Amino acid sequence: MRIATLLSGGKDSLYATYISLQYGWDVLYGVAIKPKKLSWMFHTENIHLINHIAKNVGLPLIEKETDANKEDELDDLKSALKNLAIEGIVSGAIASEYQRTRIEKICHDLGIKSFTPLWHKEQGMLLKEMIEAGFRMVIVAVAAEGLGEEWLGREINKDCFDELLRIHKKYGINISGEGGEYETFVIDCPLYKKRIEIKKATKIWEKGRGYLKIEKIL
Amino acid sequence: MRIATLLSGGKDSLYATYISLQYGWDVLYGVAIKPKKLSWMFHTENIHLINHIAKNVGLPLIEKETDANKEDELDDLKSALKNLAIEGIVSGAIASEYQRTRIEKICHDLGIKSFTPLWHKEQGMLLKEMIEAGFRMVIVAVAAEGLGEEWLGREINKDCFDELLRIHKKYGINISGEGGEYETFVIDCPLYKKRIEIKKATKIWEKGRGYLKIEKIL
Repeated sequence: MRIATLLSGGKDSLYATYISLQYGWDVLYGVAIKPKKLSWMFHTENIHLINHIAKNVGLPLIEKETDANKEDELDDLKSALKNLAIEGIVSGAIASEYQRTRIEKICHDLGIKSFTPLWHKEQGMLLKEMIEAGFRMVIVAVAAEGLGEEWLGREINKDCFDELLRIHKKYGINISGEGGEYETFVIDCPLYKKRIEIKKATKIWEKGRGYLKIEKIL
Repeated sequence: MRIATLLSGGKDSLYATYISLQYGWDVLYGVAIKPKKLSWMFHTENIHLINHIAKNVGLPLIEKETDANKEDELDDLKSALKNLAIEGIVSGAIASEYQRTRIEKICHDLGIKSFTPLWHKEQGMLLKEMIEAGFRMVIVAVAAEGLGEEWLGREINKDCFDELLRIHKKYGINISGEGGEYETFVIDCPLYKKRIEIKKATKIWEKGRGYLKIEKIL
C-alpha cells in the first residue's frame, strides 16, 4: 500500500504515520497544508517547522499553502494529492467527523483510500500508548478551562498525563486534546533521526487561549 | 465506544475483536450471520460452531440466518443490528471492497460507525502478528492452486507460515487467504476462556476445493 501521510508536527499525525509503518505500508510522502489563518481542517501552530520535521523523518514533503476558507482548503488538499503516485492517505483524525468525512470525500474523488488508524480509539489509552512508544510531545496551544498559561511549553510525560486526567474529570476536556483543547509539537519519537531541541519560544496569551510560538530549534 | 463485532470463528473476525479491545472499546455483542449457502459477504465454514465460540469469548451472540441471496443477506445483517444499543460495528475485512462498502452502507443507514482495524494491513505481517499474539488457527477450507487436500486441518504456525510464503511467491495467493484461498477456524487465542480441541472432523474434497467439516469439539 503506497501512501502519503498528512503531517502537521503534532502528535496525532506523527503517531498515525508511525502506526502506518507498523501496518507494513510504504509511506512515500508527507503532505503539509499550511493555513494562512486558523483552519477548520488543519493544524496551524508551528506549521512553519514542518519542513524540518519531514526531513527529520526522512520523507519528501509536499507542501501547499491555503487561505483556509472552508471549501478552498479542501480543494488545496486535493490539488496537493492529485499528482502523487499513491493508493491512499493516512491522517491522524481521532474523533472529528468534519475532518474525516471531508478527507474521505477528497479520496473518493481521487480514487484513493483514506486511512484513519487512530479513529475513535479511547483517548486516554491512546495518549498513554504514545508516551510509552517514546513520543515526546510539548503543548504549544491551549484553549480550554483548566489549561492556563503555565501549560504552554510543558511536555506530556506521565506526571503531566495524570494532571490532564484530573482536569479531564473536573472540566470534561478530551484528554488527548481532540476537541482543540490543546495542540502539540513532537520533539522526539521513534520516527525521528534526531531529537529536536527548542532553543527559543515565545508565549502568546489572550483571553483564555494561548500559543507557544517556537522561534528557534536545534 | 459501544460496539458489536461480526464473528465467524475465523481468524480475521476474532483478531479484529482482539484489536478492538486494545483500542479501549466496549465490545458488547458478537453478531453472526449464518448463510444457508455460499455467501458473498459471510464466512460459512463451520459457522454452526459460532455459538460455542461466542460463549468461549464471553459475548452475548446475536444470530441471524440468511438465505444468502446477494441483497437479502445485507438486509439480514441490518435487521440483526438495528435494535442493538451500539455506536458502531467492527469487522475483520482486510481487502474486500465488496464487504467493506456494503457494511458501511448499512452502518450509514443505521447511523452507526463501521470499523475495520485490519483494513489493508500488509497480509504477511498481519498473519505473523496473529501467530505471535497467540492465535492458533486451523485451515478449514482451501480453494487455490498450491493448496491441496493435505492442507485441510493444518494449523498455521511458524513452519506453516513459511510454506504459505513459498506458495504465495509461486502462485500469487494472498498469504492470509483474503481472496478466499483458504478459511480458518480459531482453536485458541487470548480472547478464549478455554482452548478448543477438535475431536472429530471430515474432509470433503471436490475439484480443487475442499472443506473440513468439524463435527465434534471439546
